[in-house]
Amino acid sequence: MKNVLGDNLTLTLFGESHGEEIGAVLDGFTPGVKVDLDFIDKCMKLRRPNGKTDTCRIEKDEYKIISGIFNGYTTGAPICMIIPNKNCNSNAYNDLVGIARPSHADYAAYMKYHGYEDYRGGGHFSGRITAPIVGLGSLCLKALNDKGIKIGTHIYKCGNAQDTEFKDFDKEIDLINNKEIPVINNIEGKLEEEILKAKDNNDSIGGIIETAITNLPAGVGEPWFSSVEGKISNAIFSIGGVKGIEFGLGFGFSEKIGSNANDEFVLNNGQIETKTNNNGGINGGITNGMPITFKCAIKPTPSIGLKQNTVDFKNNKEVELEIKGRHDPAIIRRICIVITCITAITVCDMLISRFGVDYLK
Amino acid sequence: MKNVLGDNLTLTLFGESHGEEIGAVLDGFTPGVKVDLDFIDKCMKLRRPNGKTDTCRIEKDEYKIISGIFNGYTTGAPICMIIPNKNCNSNAYNDLVGIARPSHADYAAYMKYHGYEDYRGGGHFSGRITAPIVGLGSLCLKALNDKGIKIGTHIYKCGNAQDTEFKDFDKEIDLINNKEIPVINNIEGKLEEEILKAKDNNDSIGGIIETAITNLPAGVGEPWFSSVEGKISNAIFSIGGVKGIEFGLGFGFSEKIGSNANDEFVLNNGQIETKTNNNGGINGGITNGMPITFKCAIKPTPSIGLKQNTVDFKNNKEVELEIKGRHDPAIIRRICIVITCITAITVCDMLISRFGVDYLK
Amino acid sequence: MKNVLGDNLTLTLFGESHGEEIGAVLDGFTPGVKVDLDFIDKCMKLRRPNGKTDTCRIEKDEYKIISGIFNGYTTGAPICMIIPNKNCNSNAYNDLVGIARPSHADYAAYMKYHGYEDYRGGGHFSGRITAPIVGLGSLCLKALNDKGIKIGTHIYKCGNAQDTEFKDFDKEIDLINNKEIPVINNIEGKLEEEILKAKDNNDSIGGIIETAITNLPAGVGEPWFSSVEGKISNAIFSIGGVKGIEFGLGFGFSEKIGSNANDEFVLNNGQIETKTNNNGGINGGITNGMPITFKCAIKPTPSIGLKQNTVDFKNNKEVELEIKGRHDPAIIRRICIVITCITAITVCDMLISRFGVDYLK
Amino acid sequence: MKNVLGDNLTLTLFGESHGEEIGAVLDGFTPGVKVDLDFIDKCMKLRRPNGKTDTCRIEKDEYKIISGIFNGYTTGAPICMIIPNKNCNSNAYNDLVGIARPSHADYAAYMKYHGYEDYRGGGHFSGRITAPIVGLGSLCLKALNDKGIKIGTHIYKCGNAQDTEFKDFDKEIDLINNKEIPVINNIEGKLEEEILKAKDNNDSIGGIIETAITNLPAGVGEPWFSSVEGKISNAIFSIGGVKGIEFGLGFGFSEKIGSNANDEFVLNNGQIETKTNNNGGINGGITNGMPITFKCAIKPTPSIGLKQNTVDFKNNKEVELEIKGRHDPAIIRRICIVITCITAITVCDMLISRFGVDYLK
Repeated sequence: MKNVLGDNLTLTLFGESHGEEIGAVLDGFTPGVKVDLDFIDKCMKLRRPNGKTDTCRIEKDEYKIISGIFNGYTTGAPICMIIPNKNCNSNAYNDLVGIARPSHADYAAYMKYHGYEDYRGGGHFSGRITAPIVGLGSLCLKALNDKGIKIGTHIYKCGNAQDTEFKDFDKEIDLINNKEIPVINNIEGKLEEEILKAKDNNDSIGGIIETAITNLPAGVGEPWFSSVEGKISNAIFSIGGVKGIEFGLGFGFSEKIGSNANDEFVLNNGQIETKTNNNGGINGGITNGMPITFKCAIKPTPSIGLKQNTVDFKNNKEVELEIKGRHDPAIIRRICIVITCITAITVCDMLISRFGVDYLK
Repeated sequence: MKNVLGDNLTLTLFGESHGEEIGAVLDGFTPGVKVDLDFIDKCMKLRRPNGKTDTCRIEKDEYKIISGIFNGYTTGAPICMIIPNKNCNSNAYNDLVGIARPSHADYAAYMKYHGYEDYRGGGHFSGRITAPIVGLGSLCLKALNDKGIKIGTHIYKCGNAQDTEFKDFDKEIDLINNKEIPVINNIEGKLEEEILKAKDNNDSIGGIIETAITNLPAGVGEPWFSSVEGKISNAIFSIGGVKGIEFGLGFGFSEKIGSNANDEFVLNNGQIETKTNNNGGINGGITNGMPITFKCAIKPTPSIGLKQNTVDFKNNKEVELEIKGRHDPAIIRRICIVITCITAITVCDMLISRFGVDYLK
Repeated sequence: MKNVLGDNLTLTLFGESHGEEIGAVLDGFTPGVKVDLDFIDKCMKLRRPNGKTDTCRIEKDEYKIISGIFNGYTTGAPICMIIPNKNCNSNAYNDLVGIARPSHADYAAYMKYHGYEDYRGGGHFSGRITAPIVGLGSLCLKALNDKGIKIGTHIYKCGNAQDTEFKDFDKEIDLINNKEIPVINNIEGKLEEEILKAKDNNDSIGGIIETAITNLPAGVGEPWFSSVEGKISNAIFSIGGVKGIEFGLGFGFSEKIGSNANDEFVLNNGQIETKTNNNGGINGGITNGMPITFKCAIKPTPSIGLKQNTVDFKNNKEVELEIKGRHDPAIIRRICIVITCITAITVCDMLISRFGVDYLK
Repeated sequence: MKNVLGDNLTLTLFGESHGEEIGAVLDGFTPGVKVDLDFIDKCMKLRRPNGKTDTCRIEKDEYKIISGIFNGYTTGAPICMIIPNKNCNSNAYNDLVGIARPSHADYAAYMKYHGYEDYRGGGHFSGRITAPIVGLGSLCLKALNDKGIKIGTHIYKCGNAQDTEFKDFDKEIDLINNKEIPVINNIEGKLEEEILKAKDNNDSIGGIIETAITNLPAGVGEPWFSSVEGKISNAIFSIGGVKGIEFGLGFGFSEKIGSNANDEFVLNNGQIETKTNNNGGINGGITNGMPITFKCAIKPTPSIGLKQNTVDFKNNKEVELEIKGRHDPAIIRRICIVITCITAITVCDMLISRFGVDYLK
């Protein structure tokens, strides 16, 4: 389905960048889970622009949860979160009607919606719509945390700024989830330098991020069409800017042969584990008890200030384009919490599908 | 859903490696499409082992289509294909009960199915189950071809054998779909060498494959949760051995900045196209009319003849394992047609979802 | 799915009777459909209590559509409607915590949600939640009307007030959709009498309603599991108070034999029709071009003012109950537009599933 | 979806009346459930014609389960059942091409499938396709029985033969499930008389059946769009011939007022029950622990031997029709086990959705 994610726990998204309000509905969540608004606030803040390496459109994101919570606990009924759009400036977009911004959805949307789409600020395609994903995804994340399951995402590579892979999982997840710039090592300076260089050039930059999920029980997921990889990748590719995903070694498997790629099983204090984790915690589409790891490729933000050649699809002629508006030179910092939160929703869905709706209580 | 793929066109899979028969049901297909059994045979043949670089378990795959076809045309009712398993040798697996073959699903399946799973030959997780995917997927592929839409997959990299990316799309797709070893350039010798080297060492090898879809209309797919990337990746990750997927430039975007990553729109004889195709034909989850391109990472086949350390999970003790059976030193040749066919099913599903069920007639 | 209705056109519901706001999201609707707010207002008004034969909790239903509409047309993105709850009086419900109101969902909800459910005014189970169904369903209804497809529902029987079945379909549908009390014949007086008698006795009354859909093309719907009957009945039974549905002759078929039950096909000015319409326009789950007709049984409103015996399930003891609050002596008038609107959503879903998303333009 | 029933436990149907084989796939069933083939055989036998009051097309129904069972237990993988069609006589149908048999799906199917449908014996619309529903549904029914949950369906009314409603539920369910003609009272003679009278007149007869489900825990089902009523009715209406369904009192509610319709809660040895069960065990779409009861209206079999007027839709002209073939004068006996079995599948789906996949073990 178009704007509905999930099997037993579903997230329905709505809203446009310059509409009155945006929001989402989370349906099928466990009743009786305590809602921690401070935790949600913290996650929302991580997604918000910092005004320096990010866009200067700052939204306060004064969300309201208008259903599904009663006396501080989830009720089991759909949870709807609404967030007003306050800092819209649609004027910058009036000149853009019919102009296909390169690598944006404008032209594809026009071919699909025949010109009826709300083009202002990217409309329903805007990254702004990830705010309610973080809002309700962080509610899922907290419930997982309370069961001992952790999820974290850090910037692995951005230009020449290079982080290391997860190693000491739980500790590093705690670390990055509490940093404004989610990196394991102290590469914040280098990272900022790379992003500001792009910004100063009216250009943009992308990179690679890494996500880990720990303490998921073995035996979750499905063979074939609801594999853990399949469900996570379907969720992740909904986030604008993601153009690749690899689990465990991923594309690195092409440098290996079976004997050094296989993950041997071992006993660790009587517990079954694998010695290496090249498969990223998933065998045959199902969790094996090891940490789930995956990396995502993030393309440079398509909105750049430089002059570009493109096409006016309403008048079928080539034009020059200079995008004004306010945009991020890099979304790689802000996207980390979005990826973590949409992963949290998907993990909750898989657990509820496996063990029933009361599992997260 | 577990073994059901798709929204409006669904594929339901069933069967085990050493069961009596395997098969699949394709539901929701356009009525009135001529069925070309020779085309299906040709695709089935491409998936079958060649006995040289592949396993020596050869199955004739004498499939039957037992429903949904009448007088040589699809009826619109579910199409069920059944394929008998004839060349099974379950003895080799009797010693393996409770032994977690490294990087296989045995242990994950045990944790999910509590020991009731059919472990012989990988059971329901076996690559053998891809035979009906090719059988019914090739029916979809032929219908797409008849509408001018082409899909092809070639080996891009395997060890030191390296092919080039798609460039002259339609021509190269025709080329590779008619070669036993799907490569654009003449690297068959090098490729065979790499695979036989692994085979001689009782080892295995993986690699990278590339797929292209051409002539898809712009405006297909959905924003957010049914993006073209999301739907294709969910389908692709159901195929055992796939551990990564990237669309267009994919992970290569991390070497770019916005100004050289963006795909500028141009007019080509009045047609709107993009100059480059770094986004692999997809903007905002929706086709833009350019060829869809993606690469997949294939891990080395986990079944190797070398001695490996692992765990007997039924008795909770460490053991040594030497896999006998008959297995592929590399599935990278055979997987190409599987990827092409499951992509064909997904593309048909997206087209039917967009334009209604009669679109493929 | 729990709170998501439909296959390709989905309605997601949220909200509680005494929450801040209620609403719904309609996803997958045709882009480019003009939105007629006056038509929506008219339908919303038909659902609102009239303060005489209905409850005296009057809500203004000042709905907002916060997404999916741009410049007066649908965009193709999700349409979210929000309606504030203003006239709540939760005090009346404080005494009721743990008391199972007979024939209400209180006890069933408690067994499902373990006491975390919002019990005030029925919470998420409240008939109040049908307001956004009417809001967004009337948008669907208008789009159908613009294609010549009509839907109407009238009170067929309530106590001794008895209407006739549809006969002159299009004309009668227009008639009842413009009457405050939807009846074909002038039985308003008798009807009011029946309802006020129940009200005066602190009691309640139900009845039977009849719905018709005209001008649907033949060939819509699916055999087996997405039959027109199946999809409509699943939608209809979501409305509280409905306890039975019959298509065409329905239970009356038990008084017939094949030769007088079968609908003979005839040519009417070259058009294929049936002489009778005992099957209510559906053969084998698929429309045959005749009007779709069905009747629904509506139980008497369970909230009555009379003293009732019941159980306090929190303390596991029998208690006497006297419901205060404000409730309808009969919902049979107000439910008609709700049934029409949820039917409209289902019909749009079936048409979009059959012909593609642009069909309703 | 068209031929896929269910949310977490799905049944996919395929096959045509005169095709080579028919069958179904049950996916998502609990692993580790013992399979009782004798029980399945017994249920299959109840569905088979008896050659006296039923059609004289007798099929042996020599089904094969070709996947999902290993060592006598379900594995958790999809269970596929295949049944050959052996006793086909397609000749009788050759004259019928293009002739719309009254109250059959021929014309509706033609408008949907454009003439590509397999018309022989009703093709995919045939009642024959219910054989695998009984095959796999009886597997579900046995699993429910082993958990203490019972389901039974009896003929409530057929012409002047009238049975009584369920009263002593568990005992009566056991009784009817072991009778060739499922009736609570000894009305077999009267029933046979009614059916043979129709048969002798080359006519047919329908009636009303009643189903009960006992010992379902309270708190199963969903508010709004996956209500117990909605899910059961959607499943039931897939069975050809059903034209109405009512839960509990159903249409009888129109003869009541709230005070005598409401089900008061009482304590019975400390257990919460209702004094009456007018709501058929369902409040707000969710089970309340009382027996689920519903009645279905079955129309007279549309195939009759009498001459009928109808239309040749291929040549657009009115014609006279005399159906030869072999058909049932009444399906009301054979449909009972079909309704019981498809209800069993739906109940298993609801339980697995609520409590997780291992619940039925």
